Amino acid sequence: MAERFEIVEKALIQMLEEKKYITLRDILVTMNPSDIAAIFADLEEKQIPLMFRLLTKEQAAETFVEMDPDAQELLIRGFSDNELKEVVDELYVDDAADLVEEMPANVVKRILKQADPEMRKSINQILRYPENSAGSIMTTEYVSLRPNMTVEEAILRIRRQGVDKETIYTCYVTGKDRRLLGLITVKDLLLAEDDETPLEQIMLTNIISVTTQTDQEEVARMFSKYNFLALPVVDGENRMVGIVTFDDAMDVMEDEATEDIELMGAMTPSEKPYLKSSPLDLFKNRFPWLTLLMVSSTFTGLIITSFEDALAAQVALTAFIPMLMGTGGNSGSQSSVTVIRSLSLGELKFKDIGIVLWKELRTALMCGIALAVVCFAKIWLVDHLLFRNEEITLIVDLVVCLALALTVVIAKVVGCTLPMIAKVLGADPAVMASPFITTIVDAVSLLVYFMFAKMLLSI
Amino acid sequence: MAERFEIVEKALIQMLEEKKYITLRDILVTMNPSDIAAIFADLEEKQIPLMFRLLTKEQAAETFVEMDPDAQELLIRGFSDNELKEVVDELYVDDAADLVEEMPANVVKRILKQADPEMRKSINQILRYPENSAGSIMTTEYVSLRPNMTVEEAILRIRRQGVDKETIYTCYVTGKDRRLLGLITVKDLLLAEDDETPLEQIMLTNIISVTTQTDQEEVARMFSKYNFLALPVVDGENRMVGIVTFDDAMDVMEDEATEDIELMGAMTPSEKPYLKSSPLDLFKNRFPWLTLLMVSSTFTGLIITSFEDALAAQVALTAFIPMLMGTGGNSGSQSSVTVIRSLSLGELKFKDIGIVLWKELRTALMCGIALAVVCFAKIWLVDHLLFRNEEITLIVDLVVCLALALTVVIAKVVGCTLPMIAKVLGADPAVMASPFITTIVDAVSLLVYFMFAKMLLSI
Repeated sequence: MAERFEIVEKALIQMLEEKKYITLRDILVTMNPSDIAAIFADLEEKQIPLMFRLLTKEQAAETFVEMDPDAQELLIRGFSDNELKEVVDELYVDDAADLVEEMPANVVKRILKQADPEMRKSINQILRYPENSAGSIMTTEYVSLRPNMTVEEAILRIRRQGVDKETIYTCYVTGKDRRLLGLITVKDLLLAEDDETPLEQIMLTNIISVTTQTDQEEVARMFSKYNFLALPVVDGENRMVGIVTFDDAMDVMEDEATEDIELMGAMTPSEKPYLKSSPLDLFKNRFPWLTLLMVSSTFTGLIITSFEDALAAQVALTAFIPMLMGTGGNSGSQSSVTVIRSLSLGELKFKDIGIVLWKELRTALMCGIALAVVCFAKIWLVDHLLFRNEEITLIVDLVVCLALALTVVIAKVVGCTLPMIAKVLGADPAVMASPFITTIVDAVSLLVYFMFAKMLLSI
Repeated sequence: MAERFEIVEKALIQMLEEKKYITLRDILVTMNPSDIAAIFADLEEKQIPLMFRLLTKEQAAETFVEMDPDAQELLIRGFSDNELKEVVDELYVDDAADLVEEMPANVVKRILKQADPEMRKSINQILRYPENSAGSIMTTEYVSLRPNMTVEEAILRIRRQGVDKETIYTCYVTGKDRRLLGLITVKDLLLAEDDETPLEQIMLTNIISVTTQTDQEEVARMFSKYNFLALPVVDGENRMVGIVTFDDAMDVMEDEATEDIELMGAMTPSEKPYLKSSPLDLFKNRFPWLTLLMVSSTFTGLIITSFEDALAAQVALTAFIPMLMGTGGNSGSQSSVTVIRSLSLGELKFKDIGIVLWKELRTALMCGIALAVVCFAKIWLVDHLLFRNEEITLIVDLVVCLALALTVVIAKVVGCTLPMIAKVLGADPAVMASPFITTIVDAVSLLVYFMFAKMLLSI
């Protein structure tokens, strides 16, 4: 599938180079805008406007939306005012707002000048909402109906108005002052038994809506819970201001998962796709975290330094430090990652912290004891008997395994608690993922280790 | 929003306990099935059948689908044959297939006995496809039209057939032997200018479809790329067998992200939500990974043991081991996590390995050098001058920072390469995430460290 696409792409680019414009246009007209946009991403700069002019008007706008910002900017700079107006007229309001957000100021000025007053107003309205709010991802183009319309009148209105709406399948019944009264789907309208029924008799009145301020992550969660095609966005007085459609919710879901994953990997989240990010971009997202974590691991070094004499007396102890820190870190990240994901999916709330702690504590005890047993046997059989390391006595073995068990328990408790605390403090729980937990657990595991060593080995 | 729901839930459960069934029924009838299912999750076992019988027939089926398997099983065991038939008749085929997959054998037997022959056939067909394939998540209920039908006839057919279809908004035009010829949306039909136009003149013929064998992750990626409402599933001869709808694709997207995140956190992925997982479930998903990683970190121990004399001669070196291993591990996970996510989103293919290596190498050099400089200054200023640690000479400082820079570079190269190799070998790249990379990088960082120590400190 993907390979077939690459062959097609190569052939099309070759046609462009050989100036076989008519054949190229005939093929492009059958293609999906997302696929055409993928080809644009691989074109050279000077080829982009050339190929763009081969697209039909409608296709041009749809492809434009799917292109990356660099190519969009390049095209706009090359457009005549007329060409720009043609593309902008075909855009849905939410896509236009996205575009305005991405472009530099002088390009934005040209776009807004070409947009008709209605659209300019809507764009400005969307841009006023806080980033990551429902208001910022909604579109203001939806089908609105009146409660006293009949089914037949509603269908007629959809047929007249539908062309410019992003979805016609869910329609909103509004009263005076755009107050949201109910919703009705095209399926309901088509399957209604009597064309003369007024909408107020068949519309759904128990509507699930969000406000313009609702966080986009919450919006995405509602889509995945309720399987809606669209969700109405209302203001504080239940007046309809727009809708969010499922495709935008899907994008949010994907972006939020990527953001969590990047934070978990100790990076500043970025919206740029990997292949578009320069090494300098990557450096900027990664270096601060590495520095922060490097500096915090200084404490671990300080702990080791303060137990230098103990280590000098029992050099064998040093060999188990990486295993202890590693296992502690892994135990902690398992818990933190699980809790972070459950918080993101909305399965877990802060009020569940008691349940979580109790669950993790029991899991940690099982893991800690089981690992300690395995570790005890392994050290005795491999290190002592097989490698005949005389320094590793039964007591040393015991110290290591007791430290291991306790470290695992502490790591899991810390791992599940910190993300929940971050959540309640309004921070992103994903920040509290593996690297952060590991740094804390590293220090804890050493303290526990040396404590047992002091107690049992009397050093 | 979420809190308001909890208040409603509490009130409803109280009504159930006080046997105010009529009021309860009146409220339930206005509620969304997903919300009702959420209430069922908090009911006691004996309350479940009681409240279920208060739902309307259609609501009962829709709520049933959203409930968790334990509650479903409990209900089915309590159902009379008639009640079971009523619920099964209302289910969409793909939901029925999911149910059959979840239930124990004796329950499945009863379900299949109550399903009508047509549905039984479809369920069996869906269950035959490999897990995680498009065939296993599709539904066989879609609207199919003929190429010579007019727009008016098509709308009539949708009105007659639509009730039982999961979506009516995208309809498929099929020819002889169910061969897929084109697709047309209800929007196209409603907005068509002439009711007498035959479908073949206005249908979209350049159709993007998947086969029954296509991986569900690939299916989800196509939804997020093309913003489809539904995607046709065909067999090897382009014969239509079903459709996947956007809501199922959304679930797949969420599940696949969760699976990646769990693997990255060194756990066996599980489909059970966290709050439903017992400590024993969690133990089973976590313990094998911890053991595996613990045993592999033995090598790190061996490396330290073999350099025991060097460490005894220069005890100061030990204090920097955690910082080196930690920074190496974090650098490696940054690269691996980025590459794994890009592979999952389909932004990256194995053929890009050259580009990735070159990008990561340059990033790694920048990170490595910058970190080494920071580290050098920090050790000199804090450890040497501030804490007056005489053991930390300029040479020791140099050894640590050279080792740090080289470790970061190696860690990033290893971190970006392993997931891509896993991908090309057909394994899940997410397995190659932080914990795995960290274990390798731990060993590498020590070897690099001791190599520089031997060279520069002549120990």
